[in-house]
Amino acid sequence: MAEPIDFWFDFSSPYGYLLSERIDELAARFGRKVRWHPILLGIVFKATGSAPLTLQTPAKAAYSIKDFERSARFMGIPYRHPDKFPLATQAAARAYYWLHGQDCALARQFGHAVYRALFVDNRDISAPEVVLEIAANLGVDRSSLEAALHSPEMKERLKAEVDAALAGGVFGSPHVVIDGEAFFGADRLPQIEKWLESGGF
Amino acid sequence: MAEPIDFWFDFSSPYGYLLSERIDELAARFGRKVRWHPILLGIVFKATGSAPLTLQTPAKAAYSIKDFERSARFMGIPYRHPDKFPLATQAAARAYYWLHGQDCALARQFGHAVYRALFVDNRDISAPEVVLEIAANLGVDRSSLEAALHSPEMKERLKAEVDAALAGGVFGSPHVVIDGEAFFGADRLPQIEKWLESGGF
Repeated sequence: MAEPIDFWFDFSSPYGYLLSERIDELAARFGRKVRWHPILLGIVFKATGSAPLTLQTPAKAAYSIKDFERSARFMGIPYRHPDKFPLATQAAARAYYWLHGQDCALARQFGHAVYRALFVDNRDISAPEVVLEIAANLGVDRSSLEAALHSPEMKERLKAEVDAALAGGVFGSPHVVIDGEAFFGADRLPQIEKWLESGGF
Repeated sequence: MAEPIDFWFDFSSPYGYLLSERIDELAARFGRKVRWHPILLGIVFKATGSAPLTLQTPAKAAYSIKDFERSARFMGIPYRHPDKFPLATQAAARAYYWLHGQDCALARQFGHAVYRALFVDNRDISAPEVVLEIAANLGVDRSSLEAALHSPEMKERLKAEVDAALAGGVFGSPHVVIDGEAFFGADRLPQIEKWLESGGF
């Protein structure tokens, strides 16, 4: 069986959201699974000396917001740029890893729900209450998850994922790795498709 | 008649080169002309606080060079990453504008020849002699062009184009503007095509 594809992203990343809406289905067409790795872009940017697109120059910030929206329309994916942006995603990421330990299909549903809460419904996913509510709507036990968000294990797990991302050359979101080949950005989807089709090109 | 498309780029930009190999043909399919505007990314980056991809973090630099090559293969365009990179492009840009004043079709031929000299034949296009040689191979009078490279008019013209780029929100290369809508990056070609097809989406 072919190795799973690794998908590194931050829950606050617009292009990460766009890719999240397509990557599983695309991989499945080629008999591949995808491993989702939510990480914290703030730490990655600090380590690599970068910054969120909307906090760079005014021209780039203005263009980026238009491009998030236009790229979403181009891909046929709903998008509403959030009022609070960028924002912290520790709670969402820790919840993802904890849920994944319980039920990986449920974790995937939760991942989609978090992304859509932010980029469709304009929810403040940096608030742990919002993360708990999203999970509770999927039938997750709220108090177990709440305890997990503060547990040293989940803090360590997220830290380990961020460290692994940095060690693997991740410098932004989304970052996809297929059999050692890295693809950065939702706009690399056509190249990802060709790569899966041909086993490289 | 529809307005020409504006194509802003630096002759040292790999993605600018990739787009230059496709944009005229694509525009022509929709009855559009393209105005090429070589600019100096060094000045744009200084003004906007940015830097060339290969001079950012090691992970991003390594990825970028792989991505230039892979994107070229994906688009079916020859590419060999130049030994000298990035490099200064004043001479090439001034020569382009001077030639454009004489013969716009010849300027376009020259633009392609400069890009291919750098990204196919590994030539050092920062050297004025190389720029003069490329032009001479197209039948351009070498001494007239040499004089033009040092003329205050051509220095001013290039400066004016860079100022216009900055005023128009250009922050990198390639940057394409169609009827007021901006597209950044060679990977926006599919969106450019859809935009030309539909008059917006």
